[in-house]
Amino acid sequence: MDFEAFFHEYKEKKNAYQMALSTMYYDQATIAPKNGIPYRNRMTAILSGEAFDQMADKESIQRIEELARQENVSAERKKELQLLLRELNELRVLPREVYVEYRRTIADSEAAWHEAKEQDDYQLFKPHLISVIEKQKEILSYVTDKKSDYDFMLDSYQINTDIAYYDRFFDAIRKKLLPFLQKLLKEGTPIDDSLLFTAFDIKEQEAFMQELMDYMKVNDRECYMTTTEHPFTDFFSAHEARITTHYHEHNVMSAIFSTIHEYGHAQYGLQVKEAYEGTSLFSGIGTAMHESQSRFMENHIGRNRAFWEVNYPKLQQHFPKQLQDVSLDDFMRMINVSRPSFIRTEADELTYPIHILIRYELEKEIFNGTADYDNLDTMWNDKYEEYLGIRPEHDRDGILQDMHWGGALLGYFPTYALGSAFAAQFYHQMEQDMDVEEALRSGAFEKISGWLKENIHQYGAFKDADELMMDVCGESFDPKYYIEYLKNKYAQLYQISAD
Amino acid sequence: MDFEAFFHEYKEKKNAYQMALSTMYYDQATIAPKNGIPYRNRMTAILSGEAFDQMADKESIQRIEELARQENVSAERKKELQLLLRELNELRVLPREVYVEYRRTIADSEAAWHEAKEQDDYQLFKPHLISVIEKQKEILSYVTDKKSDYDFMLDSYQINTDIAYYDRFFDAIRKKLLPFLQKLLKEGTPIDDSLLFTAFDIKEQEAFMQELMDYMKVNDRECYMTTTEHPFTDFFSAHEARITTHYHEHNVMSAIFSTIHEYGHAQYGLQVKEAYEGTSLFSGIGTAMHESQSRFMENHIGRNRAFWEVNYPKLQQHFPKQLQDVSLDDFMRMINVSRPSFIRTEADELTYPIHILIRYELEKEIFNGTADYDNLDTMWNDKYEEYLGIRPEHDRDGILQDMHWGGALLGYFPTYALGSAFAAQFYHQMEQDMDVEEALRSGAFEKISGWLKENIHQYGAFKDADELMMDVCGESFDPKYYIEYLKNKYAQLYQISAD
Repeated sequence: MDFEAFFHEYKEKKNAYQMALSTMYYDQATIAPKNGIPYRNRMTAILSGEAFDQMADKESIQRIEELARQENVSAERKKELQLLLRELNELRVLPREVYVEYRRTIADSEAAWHEAKEQDDYQLFKPHLISVIEKQKEILSYVTDKKSDYDFMLDSYQINTDIAYYDRFFDAIRKKLLPFLQKLLKEGTPIDDSLLFTAFDIKEQEAFMQELMDYMKVNDRECYMTTTEHPFTDFFSAHEARITTHYHEHNVMSAIFSTIHEYGHAQYGLQVKEAYEGTSLFSGIGTAMHESQSRFMENHIGRNRAFWEVNYPKLQQHFPKQLQDVSLDDFMRMINVSRPSFIRTEADELTYPIHILIRYELEKEIFNGTADYDNLDTMWNDKYEEYLGIRPEHDRDGILQDMHWGGALLGYFPTYALGSAFAAQFYHQMEQDMDVEEALRSGAFEKISGWLKENIHQYGAFKDADELMMDVCGESFDPKYYIEYLKNKYAQLYQISAD
Repeated sequence: MDFEAFFHEYKEKKNAYQMALSTMYYDQATIAPKNGIPYRNRMTAILSGEAFDQMADKESIQRIEELARQENVSAERKKELQLLLRELNELRVLPREVYVEYRRTIADSEAAWHEAKEQDDYQLFKPHLISVIEKQKEILSYVTDKKSDYDFMLDSYQINTDIAYYDRFFDAIRKKLLPFLQKLLKEGTPIDDSLLFTAFDIKEQEAFMQELMDYMKVNDRECYMTTTEHPFTDFFSAHEARITTHYHEHNVMSAIFSTIHEYGHAQYGLQVKEAYEGTSLFSGIGTAMHESQSRFMENHIGRNRAFWEVNYPKLQQHFPKQLQDVSLDDFMRMINVSRPSFIRTEADELTYPIHILIRYELEKEIFNGTADYDNLDTMWNDKYEEYLGIRPEHDRDGILQDMHWGGALLGYFPTYALGSAFAAQFYHQMEQDMDVEEALRSGAFEKISGWLKENIHQYGAFKDADELMMDVCGESFDPKYYIEYLKNKYAQLYQISAD
């Protein structure tokens, strides 16, 4: 078989397994009835093994490696092969049993995390967390060309990042942003947003959301939306993404911002060049870059005054009792309140990176071997007290709030803050390129989507984050845009100086 | 590897592929966004090919055949191997490409059927129908030990049935039931049920349904319910089934009866002996036997007066405006109206088998080669006119109403009528064994479920229909129970003689 035919077949099969596993995962995250889950987990583990056999087939990998070494291939193909080999990096050195056992451990641990969170008891989750981390380290022990385990994990979520890279970034957060936050908490003029936490009928919230989706020109033939406990986005092809949200009667903005956030992810997937569908150029974008797009949409667009000039009157129509006497300016202040809180996903823009800083520091301890699993919940709470001045009383509001560690997603959290910082730098550039506010005000959302597609989305994973940033913004990534954006915004809101 | 280890692994893998394919199918039938479907269909076809490789592996089949020939195996194991080989019957003789192409043809044809139904145009569907039937015949040409294609298809849905078997059954319907129906239409005292087709708020319907599920003691940890255009049931394991329903504002009983019907299916799956999970004894039950359980639940339980003695007052509470002045007796008459209609799934008990008779006659023509595809819609309409005295004006109310043929489910329809007839015979026996009405009246639904589990469900596919019928009822299947039940019931309702 010639290479093209072989490679096409290889990718199609890989994608077919991927589609099956993603669909099963999605099904379980949304609707699968509880008693069926143990059997499903067993079947999913078996299918992972089958997928492993297909992907890690030695002869196939050899052929891919051979081509990757050749000179006379297009830049896109070269990049595709590179990313594919990177993706197979661990698989090609792992024994099958180890991989299957790893997937099974994760499935059990995710179920245990759910249970422990429901019971609000970290100790129930602890043995599973330890197993997952041990399994992850075992997996990594097969990979020889790496700096350290954690360096490897960080790079696996966002290419060309490592501990040194994140240390620089989080140093800036710790030294330049944290003092500003602490000043704001002490000196800022308080904003009363308690109105947003009174009762807002969920059916009305849903009706408003539909209008919001229309405003953003979301196409329901390619983007499906439903509700889950924890909102997320899933990609299935260049023509299909799915987002979930969660309505809270006593927190009207929660569903709105999480929907806008998830749509930011979805749109990235839906605007990648169609020719990349089914290749590693479609899927290997990196979680920081992905998060940059969701945070961009959530914060720079979804918290934009011009966005609400159009949408706030609609929200008022749905909730006249609560909002008819609240001016747009007051509303804008309310939805931008900064307040230390326990839950990352509900955090405001300013405290958000501190939530991530805490997780980053703990992950470093986990990989250093200095984490004390018996008291990891206490370590967590101590850090919240130190940085944010609040101490979770419940594990479900502390270490059990996120599913990431239970799913072996170690090194993932830091990409959330990094993505937020990318977003700020992109937005700074977008404002130079076009009149963003005018587009939002006139309901020309396609101009926003168009700029993102043109500059970022279409490339998928073809350009690395550095290259993309350089091409779009004319300079490398610099956290100063993020920090200055936050300081200026919150200094104005809270009437303090930005220094 | 010893046989047990080999066989365990073989089945687990087979089940894992099955789980993946079923989940993808379910996803597509419920929520997958439209634009993603072509890519999904391609991936599903590839995965079917992978499943084929695993299932049809020559060496594996040889080992299974060897064991099936041995004497010293338990009856259960023997039956399991028999059913498995039966299931593999076509696969083991088919070239892989033919199988994959077959699956792809079906996927395309199902999509085309949806489109054609929406456009109300049989001609759009016709070329796909022809392709599907040609592909089906091509598949069957690989099977050598069969009487005729249609005999083989009928047997594949319900073991030990064939054209001769169904001819006998449908002769009884045509000769003994059809004249009675025609007499009823001429001489019966009309029943006015128009009230049931006035507006009934869908939210209230949903709330009532929840009470009905509670009454039937449905466990939502193992039975998930959602809505789709066409209600169906899917089984994933001994601990997981899913049913769908469809609410119509102007047909309040539709969702109620289809939910009860689908729950009849679901309960069968959930009450099979747990040890059969993952074996062919779990899945190879036969569609007529399965339908007997859904029709049993829908008609013999869900249209039982004692059932409504408890549930009708609840329905009245949800719809006081419509129902407060309607007595239970009047309600019972309304929900049992017999009236020739176009749509099989909405048909009453008495006309239902006539809908099936029409399809059976057309399927025979399809396999005889006497079907004229250009005018199959007309042939359909002619038969409705002949038997039921009504003529569909729209293809969507005629030949396009059911998805079965588009999905290559030829030979499936007859099992619906046969299942209804099985149900009547089972119910006749159940009434001898226990006080059904007392159980329904006292809310002891577990007694109903218990009798079904004890006598029927637990055995899964271990007993053939004949054996089961003999064990439960002490005699072979006899359509007289069905025909007499219908005649007596409707003679009383319509005040005519049952002769």
